[in-house]
Amino acid sequence: MKTPLARRIAAEWIGTAFLVAAVVGSGIMGERLSAGNMALALLVNTIATGAALVALILALAPISGAHFNPTVTLAVAWDGAMPWRECPGYVASQVLGGVCGAIAAHRMFGLPVISLSHHVRSGPAQLFSEFVATFGLLAVILGCTRAQSRATAFAVGSYIAAAYWFTASTSFANPAVTIARSLSDTFSGIRPADSPGFIGAQLVGGFAATLIFRWLSPIPRTQVDEAAEFTG
Amino acid sequence: MKTPLARRIAAEWIGTAFLVAAVVGSGIMGERLSAGNMALALLVNTIATGAALVALILALAPISGAHFNPTVTLAVAWDGAMPWRECPGYVASQVLGGVCGAIAAHRMFGLPVISLSHHVRSGPAQLFSEFVATFGLLAVILGCTRAQSRATAFAVGSYIAAAYWFTASTSFANPAVTIARSLSDTFSGIRPADSPGFIGAQLVGGFAATLIFRWLSPIPRTQVDEAAEFTG
Amino acid sequence: MKTPLARRIAAEWIGTAFLVAAVVGSGIMGERLSAGNMALALLVNTIATGAALVALILALAPISGAHFNPTVTLAVAWDGAMPWRECPGYVASQVLGGVCGAIAAHRMFGLPVISLSHHVRSGPAQLFSEFVATFGLLAVILGCTRAQSRATAFAVGSYIAAAYWFTASTSFANPAVTIARSLSDTFSGIRPADSPGFIGAQLVGGFAATLIFRWLSPIPRTQVDEAAEFTG
Amino acid sequence: MKTPLARRIAAEWIGTAFLVAAVVGSGIMGERLSAGNMALALLVNTIATGAALVALILALAPISGAHFNPTVTLAVAWDGAMPWRECPGYVASQVLGGVCGAIAAHRMFGLPVISLSHHVRSGPAQLFSEFVATFGLLAVILGCTRAQSRATAFAVGSYIAAAYWFTASTSFANPAVTIARSLSDTFSGIRPADSPGFIGAQLVGGFAATLIFRWLSPIPRTQVDEAAEFTG
Repeated sequence: MKTPLARRIAAEWIGTAFLVAAVVGSGIMGERLSAGNMALALLVNTIATGAALVALILALAPISGAHFNPTVTLAVAWDGAMPWRECPGYVASQVLGGVCGAIAAHRMFGLPVISLSHHVRSGPAQLFSEFVATFGLLAVILGCTRAQSRATAFAVGSYIAAAYWFTASTSFANPAVTIARSLSDTFSGIRPADSPGFIGAQLVGGFAATLIFRWLSPIPRTQVDEAAEFTG
Repeated sequence: MKTPLARRIAAEWIGTAFLVAAVVGSGIMGERLSAGNMALALLVNTIATGAALVALILALAPISGAHFNPTVTLAVAWDGAMPWRECPGYVASQVLGGVCGAIAAHRMFGLPVISLSHHVRSGPAQLFSEFVATFGLLAVILGCTRAQSRATAFAVGSYIAAAYWFTASTSFANPAVTIARSLSDTFSGIRPADSPGFIGAQLVGGFAATLIFRWLSPIPRTQVDEAAEFTG
Repeated sequence: MKTPLARRIAAEWIGTAFLVAAVVGSGIMGERLSAGNMALALLVNTIATGAALVALILALAPISGAHFNPTVTLAVAWDGAMPWRECPGYVASQVLGGVCGAIAAHRMFGLPVISLSHHVRSGPAQLFSEFVATFGLLAVILGCTRAQSRATAFAVGSYIAAAYWFTASTSFANPAVTIARSLSDTFSGIRPADSPGFIGAQLVGGFAATLIFRWLSPIPRTQVDEAAEFTG
Repeated sequence: MKTPLARRIAAEWIGTAFLVAAVVGSGIMGERLSAGNMALALLVNTIATGAALVALILALAPISGAHFNPTVTLAVAWDGAMPWRECPGYVASQVLGGVCGAIAAHRMFGLPVISLSHHVRSGPAQLFSEFVATFGLLAVILGCTRAQSRATAFAVGSYIAAAYWFTASTSFANPAVTIARSLSDTFSGIRPADSPGFIGAQLVGGFAATLIFRWLSPIPRTQVDEAAEFTG
């Protein structure tokens, strides 16, 4: 039984809001408590983000699929598992939810509603990092979902926790989250001027992973049919 | 087969006692060993709390549902999954269990049985944090249980681990635990005068999440019937 | 199909050896690298122990039940899930395996084969901690196994990770491991003179939990029959 | 339905590349941010490696079995679960993937493509550590897969996270990864001259574990037949 689109969009909104609140909020708390120890600040930011992803995906995947990420929505649509016409609603909801999440984090920590970030994240190493990070994220998601694994939430939470550390950019890997983080002049922010480059690298990385997985692990026929029925 | 109410209440007592012992005890140990590094103290407090939740929910959910939290019990009753007349027993057991857990933690660390906390946690940012924390906790629980996910324990443990860091209040999100922590003048304590505000914000947050999920993800008819049979 | 006793005993030997090697070895490594920061040393000791338990229980439970702990073996026998006559073999194997694990850890870190510990762990707070720790461990195990949960490994690993921090004794909760740790004059050691008190508190805690769970969650008839067939 | 060999080899390539990128990249990031605190640097290296293993095995096991490790491939072939003639392709792909992963990590952090490591890791304690580490890794994998556990990914990620701390060598336990890490003069590197000793100890440890498990937990007949059909 298909969940009505409005509810799925609401679930994407709630999920992305909590995801960004977790990223931004734990960055603020981590920086405040860690007394200048950057490894410790990033470690708690990592744990909070990975754990939030596990919880949010487990809770909301039954409703909306728990994308929380435009590159995931695009890959799912390309696979035929949701109709293209539903993508704009999903993506708008993710971006809006992300911004609301950043605002909520700021209010919880007594900061101004929004403040443009001054955190410089530019240069080829950063862009290559975002390409790798998003390639890996989509590979993990596609690998799990095509095998109809019920462990996708754990795979995604674990992957992002790892990628925070093995990419130089701390693995944003999500255009909606990137936009939201540009509005937060805190630990996890990104300068608005650097966002388009990040988003471009993310889209290319996600596209590359999806392309490769269409050869590596073709989506089962039955699954497409179910998806068509599910979303049609 | 329905577990008799007395046993379910005993399971809530044991579970909430161990939960509070984990929160208070790991706060004491963390503060003692971390030599003033607050990020490290909160990190071990986080890990102990999240891990204890996973273990306790996995172990006791088959008996009592493993609420350990009055807001969860109220939401479950509102959903028709347990009769309202059982709520007072559950809530009393949770509060009493929580107090016993605080006492046990104090005795394990050679502290006085009970000591009123002087830890100030007040102001709108703290209250908004508790609203957000409890909204998210109930959203995670309702999202998982309506899809009959067997991963609820992991979702809750992960969510609370994240929320320790992304809310300014370190996410109490539980009236029974809040009362117990007001009786502990240690790392994780809360001034008794600040408890009512926290509890109020928690109830509002839990109510809001339950309201929204009644639209977002209506409880399946068959599940209500089973629940009625299960608890009736 | 019943695994022959010799193989089950061998699995208990291997599992307990690796468990103790993980406890002792990570204690040595943690202390060496953490430059006097005790919170950090205990944190890595915690993570290594909890993670080792998850891995070892997942791998060896299908063979021997993955007790690695005499209190667990006694509780399982009391429940009728294994015959009493098999207990001596299990317990001897656990103690011997634990000693071998300590020796292996010492050799990996270039230390003498065995060295009696000078780490004082005595007094009522410590003994009460061991009572609580073992009570909780058995409650978690019995709660999970009676519901035939396949998540027992995660529950046990999570519980011990939490109990390292919320008990004043860092939760030995295991007579075989206690004996082995008395032979290691390193971070995780215990003075041989303090071991009997720890073991006594552990046995009492384990007995109390098993007694309570026989009322709280009676073992299903069918499961006893299966166990009888399985082990008979 | 058997996945064609070319795709399985590609999956091994991608998986091993991301595994090495996670090990090397998080080592670089950890060392940069931890300001000389070696325990913290190794802790984040541990978390990133364990989490990456969970994600990569969940995603790629349905395609190639997710070995990412020549000792695993040899053990699987010895068990009759894949034909020997496929081993060279798997192993070559793992080694090549590992090297590419190291290169990718270097490029993400703005370092030279390849730099021979000067990190000395020699002596009997180190070699014994690698023997123990690989023995345990294979024991965990064989224990899980013979019981057809779906939790193998979590067991392997947890085991390696623990073994980073309980072995003196930080548990390479993988010849392909050892070769790749010899090409990285960073935190996680190993001097090329020390690699052959490590690889030898790993092969002996893996062989010993497989030998013991052939007695301890014979591979079920039905499983061999399925494997033959699956891979033949």
